[in-house]
Amino acid sequence: MNKDAIFHRPESEYAYLYTNEKVHIRIQVTRGDILSAELVYGDPYIWKKIEGKEGQYWKSNVSKMHKTLFTTTSDYFEVEVTVPTKRMDYLFILTSVDGKKVILTDQGVFEYKKKLLNQKYAAFRLPYFHESDRFKSPEWVKDTVWYQIFPERFANGDESNDPAGVKAWNPKEKPERQDFYGGDLQGVIDHLDHLTELGVNGIYFTPLFKAASNHKYDTEDYLEIDPSFGNKVLFKKLVDAAHDRGIKIMLDAVFNHIGDTSSQWLDVLKHQEASKFANWFHVNSWPATYTPTDDFENAENVTYDTFAFTPHMPKLNTSNPEVQDYLLKITEYWIREFDIDAWRLDVADEVDHTFWKKFRMTCDSIKKDFYILGEVWHSAQPWLVGDEFSAVMNYAYTDAIKDGLITKKITLNQMVSNINTQLTLYRKQTNQLMFNVLDSHDTPRILTVAKNNKELMKLVEVFTYLQPGVPCIYYGDEFAMTGDMDPDCRRCMPWSEDLQDANMFSFFKQLVAFRHNYAQVLSDSSVVWKRVDNRRGIVKFERGELKAIFNIGKQPVSFTEDNVVFSNLVEDNSVLQYGFVIYK
Amino acid sequence: MNKDAIFHRPESEYAYLYTNEKVHIRIQVTRGDILSAELVYGDPYIWKKIEGKEGQYWKSNVSKMHKTLFTTTSDYFEVEVTVPTKRMDYLFILTSVDGKKVILTDQGVFEYKKKLLNQKYAAFRLPYFHESDRFKSPEWVKDTVWYQIFPERFANGDESNDPAGVKAWNPKEKPERQDFYGGDLQGVIDHLDHLTELGVNGIYFTPLFKAASNHKYDTEDYLEIDPSFGNKVLFKKLVDAAHDRGIKIMLDAVFNHIGDTSSQWLDVLKHQEASKFANWFHVNSWPATYTPTDDFENAENVTYDTFAFTPHMPKLNTSNPEVQDYLLKITEYWIREFDIDAWRLDVADEVDHTFWKKFRMTCDSIKKDFYILGEVWHSAQPWLVGDEFSAVMNYAYTDAIKDGLITKKITLNQMVSNINTQLTLYRKQTNQLMFNVLDSHDTPRILTVAKNNKELMKLVEVFTYLQPGVPCIYYGDEFAMTGDMDPDCRRCMPWSEDLQDANMFSFFKQLVAFRHNYAQVLSDSSVVWKRVDNRRGIVKFERGELKAIFNIGKQPVSFTEDNVVFSNLVEDNSVLQYGFVIYK
Repeated sequence: MNKDAIFHRPESEYAYLYTNEKVHIRIQVTRGDILSAELVYGDPYIWKKIEGKEGQYWKSNVSKMHKTLFTTTSDYFEVEVTVPTKRMDYLFILTSVDGKKVILTDQGVFEYKKKLLNQKYAAFRLPYFHESDRFKSPEWVKDTVWYQIFPERFANGDESNDPAGVKAWNPKEKPERQDFYGGDLQGVIDHLDHLTELGVNGIYFTPLFKAASNHKYDTEDYLEIDPSFGNKVLFKKLVDAAHDRGIKIMLDAVFNHIGDTSSQWLDVLKHQEASKFANWFHVNSWPATYTPTDDFENAENVTYDTFAFTPHMPKLNTSNPEVQDYLLKITEYWIREFDIDAWRLDVADEVDHTFWKKFRMTCDSIKKDFYILGEVWHSAQPWLVGDEFSAVMNYAYTDAIKDGLITKKITLNQMVSNINTQLTLYRKQTNQLMFNVLDSHDTPRILTVAKNNKELMKLVEVFTYLQPGVPCIYYGDEFAMTGDMDPDCRRCMPWSEDLQDANMFSFFKQLVAFRHNYAQVLSDSSVVWKRVDNRRGIVKFERGELKAIFNIGKQPVSFTEDNVVFSNLVEDNSVLQYGFVIYK
Repeated sequence: MNKDAIFHRPESEYAYLYTNEKVHIRIQVTRGDILSAELVYGDPYIWKKIEGKEGQYWKSNVSKMHKTLFTTTSDYFEVEVTVPTKRMDYLFILTSVDGKKVILTDQGVFEYKKKLLNQKYAAFRLPYFHESDRFKSPEWVKDTVWYQIFPERFANGDESNDPAGVKAWNPKEKPERQDFYGGDLQGVIDHLDHLTELGVNGIYFTPLFKAASNHKYDTEDYLEIDPSFGNKVLFKKLVDAAHDRGIKIMLDAVFNHIGDTSSQWLDVLKHQEASKFANWFHVNSWPATYTPTDDFENAENVTYDTFAFTPHMPKLNTSNPEVQDYLLKITEYWIREFDIDAWRLDVADEVDHTFWKKFRMTCDSIKKDFYILGEVWHSAQPWLVGDEFSAVMNYAYTDAIKDGLITKKITLNQMVSNINTQLTLYRKQTNQLMFNVLDSHDTPRILTVAKNNKELMKLVEVFTYLQPGVPCIYYGDEFAMTGDMDPDCRRCMPWSEDLQDANMFSFFKQLVAFRHNYAQVLSDSSVVWKRVDNRRGIVKFERGELKAIFNIGKQPVSFTEDNVVFSNLVEDNSVLQYGFVIYK
């Protein structure tokens, strides 16, 4: 038995309240090493004397744990239990494939002896089931299919507000980094029917607030809609129209940094150390200055902290109470006045936890079931304890899918291992909310990654929609738009039919409808891997009642059920060539 | 190489800010498996082109990690690094004893390939060095030797406030659970000289607030000093007198539950569901009631949540904002009005994190460098992230010492393993603040555990004072008091010289002085184990410049240095019989 690889951590994704009374317990062991795992648990304070025996005995229950996910190196066992008194001590009994039996307590791994069950303070503990500390998942998110809009490129509904030097709308043209095409909020309102037809029910807007660039991540004024996008009256109209259609609205909060055209930063540049905003930033040595390079977004000798090395995005000092007040008022303003449903937090990992905890309390105090989505590209456990974000942009998860199914940088077995690694980083209710983006304004478009192989793109989309978490369509993917790394992935949306791929649009409508039909099962059920065959290019798994087969190999796969829910099968309902089939 | 046992977790005790710019990184591997470990790290945004090569290359540094602590199953490697831009991506290169080389990234363990160093978003990340999120340790705590006073039994300085039915002061008598002996605050004031002579500089008081019991854990009124202890004027006098002597004051906050004689609970009993305090508690079914048993502290059929099953301690609903306000006002009151320096939190693990985070913010906002000590008997990582407690009562640590050196339930090797397990659960600055209690009002006295072997008790005290963390003397231990499990451990303090052990008192004075002399080194340095010989009963370790040998075996140990700092050696300065020696 590989004792040193046994891992458990109380009050983490390994031990947490799933509902207000159900506890999920997980343990990690070496793959193939452990035959069976049992959880011994009970109220910490119930000790009984046994007639004729010395000492006191802990009144405990035993539950068999279930082998669930696995990676290339580990197996996971899980179980759901409860204790009526809402307090729980627990420990594990593990039996290895070679017949050895150990006990894992809060103090380590020991050879199994019955008396260890009764050793006070040796057990792990969930001291009390606190609903206030539980990670909560808003129900509406579980049935949301998001649609990401980069407003400058979605639709130009009002030419009167076009920025100076606007270029003609041209979906075929690769934009330069500083181009403007005139997209705006009226354009979004004009095309709400399109979103409804597609079936999406959440819009994630990249920033709408006043800023100098086309992407608006260099905020000038957080309390104004950018004039080239429209104004607050128009935005309110948009939110109301969306809500009427059952579409939720998520805005982008860029709180890590501000734009260098903001009044605060201009004041710093003018008055330097004497500026009343001097402590709003992280100026490491005065004066605040930099040496430009050929690259607009890159500078040298910057004397203040910035996003990356972009001198136009000075980093905000979010531990300054004045800055906190300022940002929290903005946070509150757009929820209270415009009834938005969610905030997406830009560069969320570089802002302090102390601030995000206050941010979370602010949102929760204003609107029930508010969704908070952090931009974190790496493992995100520290932000997903329950008192900061609801979820993160799940690039780490979708990268595994892309690497396994599209680029084949990794084997299918490694893909499943990586997926399971991600799933085991978080609580179940967190996984249900994760934002599974295959592409965005920060990545190449998925069809470009797939080298224009539309069938492969569809397969990957279906695979992703079947995962725990919620999907998001990057504007234009439904018309098979292509585009490489930014700025190419930010082309103008094709609104003329000749530039739209009707087949892809039809596919997406089906896919979104499928996702809504099975939102509950795709949220509640576990992922059960049934077959991963890298040589033949086949992956099979189940989500509750749904069975899925993916075939990226050259040989057909037979299956016996004929209750097909969704597939790219053309004729024979029991043989899958290249593609996917979902059946019950 | 045992790949599946390699463990690291970003933003935890495995990766944290030690000072505002120094980062500590730790990794856990199978014991004896890894020959060398290197940390590759740098700013996440510095990527360079290399002439004649495709792609971009991450500009990183490499630091060799040091093998530090070990358990029966694991080795730990650690390193301290910094990055001037205050942002850090990092990964590990590990070389096994059998020559294999792997790389550990945020996405798992992979065979070492140089190109993996340049894979974007594969690294672990400390996104920004936020001082606001750093776990901070108040300097004064590092040089504090605490003294725990159970006021009802320390000294009776004012017979006029004795409770009804008070018994005669008798240190030889084993108290009954409900006895009163008349100890009070005047008694403490009268004996401050004793504390000064002993050299302690912090008093930890078990509860002083108005309550029915002798232990006062069933609070009736958090805003009054119990009348049998004195009053607020007297308490203020005590705090001022203590502060004048450089002695800090820590009070016991019993916020998990309240007493059943409190006005709030009496109102619930009277008005039941209609009480305005109905939601201050966790009443599971109305009416709030119970069936008494023979044991005053134990009931059956309790319809409300309590501490353990004690009907006299109804659990407070700390997620109710009214209760939060009430308790936070109390928190603030005793700091602001009486200038106390620390709160000890009773049954801290059973109160929600959400409340403790508000509690922490309250304390920090009123007094700088405030110390918050939680009563947590098991592993306490969830409370020791930096936004809740400063430390916990370190029973898990001192249990290992008692089990290894006194009861010999475990071998010396297992003792060192258990100690190291505890040390690796927390950040270095947390370990510096841990409250290392060998005994308290909740355990048998240490001399009783040591079966009255005073030399063994001394050895164990010295061993404990040499550990990271701060020591605490339970009142009377300095006079070699004995006493079994509560209530026997709560006997009256012996103030007549014939009942005092002068030799033990002299030993404690030396020990406390030694601890103050070396507070800095005992706080800053690491524990370096040099020899653990269970057969011969010998443990040797170093703390910075200090070398320590402990001998509980039958054979003498020779040592060559003669710069002895502290020992029980009688004659020969180079041979240690049974006992301890600390030298430089």
